[in-house]
Amino acid sequence: MSQVYNFSAGPAMLPVEVMRRAEQEFCNWKGLGVSVMEVSHRGKDFIAVAEEAEQNLRDLLNIPQNYKVLFCHGGARGHFAALPMNLLGDKSTADYIVGGYWAESAAEEAQKYCSPNIIQVKQEKDGVLGIKPMSEWQLSQEAAYVHYCPNETIDGLAIHEEPDFPKDKVIIADYSSSILSKPIDISRYGVVYAGAQKNIGPAGLTIVIIREDLLGKAAKQTPSVLDYTVLAKYDSMFNTPPTFAWYLSGMVFKWLKEQGGLQEMAKRNYEKSQLLYNAIDDSEFYINRVAVENRSWMNVPFQMQNPALDEKFLEEAKAQGLLSLKGHRVSGGMRASIYNAMPLAGVQALVDFMADFERRHA
Amino acid sequence: MSQVYNFSAGPAMLPVEVMRRAEQEFCNWKGLGVSVMEVSHRGKDFIAVAEEAEQNLRDLLNIPQNYKVLFCHGGARGHFAALPMNLLGDKSTADYIVGGYWAESAAEEAQKYCSPNIIQVKQEKDGVLGIKPMSEWQLSQEAAYVHYCPNETIDGLAIHEEPDFPKDKVIIADYSSSILSKPIDISRYGVVYAGAQKNIGPAGLTIVIIREDLLGKAAKQTPSVLDYTVLAKYDSMFNTPPTFAWYLSGMVFKWLKEQGGLQEMAKRNYEKSQLLYNAIDDSEFYINRVAVENRSWMNVPFQMQNPALDEKFLEEAKAQGLLSLKGHRVSGGMRASIYNAMPLAGVQALVDFMADFERRHA
Repeated sequence: MSQVYNFSAGPAMLPVEVMRRAEQEFCNWKGLGVSVMEVSHRGKDFIAVAEEAEQNLRDLLNIPQNYKVLFCHGGARGHFAALPMNLLGDKSTADYIVGGYWAESAAEEAQKYCSPNIIQVKQEKDGVLGIKPMSEWQLSQEAAYVHYCPNETIDGLAIHEEPDFPKDKVIIADYSSSILSKPIDISRYGVVYAGAQKNIGPAGLTIVIIREDLLGKAAKQTPSVLDYTVLAKYDSMFNTPPTFAWYLSGMVFKWLKEQGGLQEMAKRNYEKSQLLYNAIDDSEFYINRVAVENRSWMNVPFQMQNPALDEKFLEEAKAQGLLSLKGHRVSGGMRASIYNAMPLAGVQALVDFMADFERRHA
Repeated sequence: MSQVYNFSAGPAMLPVEVMRRAEQEFCNWKGLGVSVMEVSHRGKDFIAVAEEAEQNLRDLLNIPQNYKVLFCHGGARGHFAALPMNLLGDKSTADYIVGGYWAESAAEEAQKYCSPNIIQVKQEKDGVLGIKPMSEWQLSQEAAYVHYCPNETIDGLAIHEEPDFPKDKVIIADYSSSILSKPIDISRYGVVYAGAQKNIGPAGLTIVIIREDLLGKAAKQTPSVLDYTVLAKYDSMFNTPPTFAWYLSGMVFKWLKEQGGLQEMAKRNYEKSQLLYNAIDDSEFYINRVAVENRSWMNVPFQMQNPALDEKFLEEAKAQGLLSLKGHRVSGGMRASIYNAMPLAGVQALVDFMADFERRHA
């Protein structure tokens, strides 16, 4: 089959070079005659994989020494529960900045453990979606922490600047859909976490980066596999971790370093997203409803003036090797997810197809 | 490299035929030009994989219609917490039959949620390890359920017969290390669960088979990803499941059917284990301390009269392609894990090596 570009929102495309290497050593890893997924997580061969993955992630994100990096089970949704269980301490509320579906889901799960202070920041003005200015975010004095999600995949709505929260606040960010897309300043956060299946690796792994002073106050009923203090103590091996996902994520970290690190990825991601947004804006046929300053670099939803053409668009795109462009069921239309693994050539192929489709159907 | 046999206790060897097929379609699954791990779990292609896997598991274990099959995150340890959170209801105790490390770990985790009635059933008589007769197991009238683990991997201690518990008890069994090794009668259980990484597939997936009438009473603070009612409602897709592990496990289920199902596996597993136990018993050089009626078919620990030879044994075995034979750190010595994927030829190679080693070192 000819070149395929996969725009799935998650599980998503992984770097071609990583997949080729994993394929080569799939049944005979390091010449051992077995797969990496068939060896003990406690053996020296896998420990080396685990440690190298962590070190490369630390290098990429410039993670300070007083942060632990945990490789966890549970998906980001598991950590919607784990976060309040681990961090509320004796507090009974936490601030949840809600700009979309994922932050809202996190707040909903938190209601099992506290009374979250929910701060709606998504706004719609004259049909344009955006994020309210931070001056309007009413944080609570009693909150154990402030939780937000810098990139909402469904609306393609991003908070690009790290918000200038008061210094004494513990900031938690769900970076599931934008981690490693550009440099971030970890030292501003109490916890940065991300499900792997969008911009890291296969589904089933969640990365949690947590400042050490936040450990040690999990609620008694926290399941051990979601207890960050336990996971930190056992180097994420209190129970058998998802080893193949850890291994493959480690290969992605290495690949990112080879590409030039996160400054380079930021440059590429900006370029890719601008190519697509410009194509949309320059057309009268396609629409993106998000305010320019809140447009995601990772997930680009777009609609056509005539939604009756959606199915035809998706079919023809698929026939040309442009996969998984269907929008989320909530928002309809189309969505192109263009994470780190998507090359510029993939976005160019999409833009070319869009222009051709417009010419034939406008 | 010549033929390798991997005796790892978990993550463990997977069937060679399954690994070869997964290798072939690793980068181009179903001719789609992408990997199965790169597609949406909600797309029709993956849904077909998910449904086929469940159906094949249902066929293999003859799972009654009034049971749900859940494909979960968290590892078996995650479910050590999930089980009491989901099943205690208004009860404040549960029976934990403890025959070894894993059942004990489950009971320990349960202490976060109730006061478990811990029933120690492991016994040592004249240096022989075994399980106390069931007539001595003191169940509690108030217990919400009875939990036990039919195969303890560290001591290689098994409860082969399904215990004849009173009919009104809800029985939960941790089958992590012996599921699919022989037929079991699911209808005797409230819940059968198993981490995938021993006898099913890669680490990061846990299978939970639960009788439907036990759903609907999770404690309020149960994380959604561990709430069986939520998972059942969403067909295990409340959050993104570990899709690659699900896919590969499905291939293992299909392989098991092709081999002739669980009657055939039971025959093979018995034959493999007897070959190894007979070799040990026929020698004055190797020892297995488990009573014949409680010897595991899956995990066979053995020691040498002279432990100073252990390292040499392991080195020479490795050089001959017999991998991961080191015993658990608690028990020392050696351990051969011989799950479904291990062919008779692998056990024969081990037995041949053991005889040769004995000849040279006795």
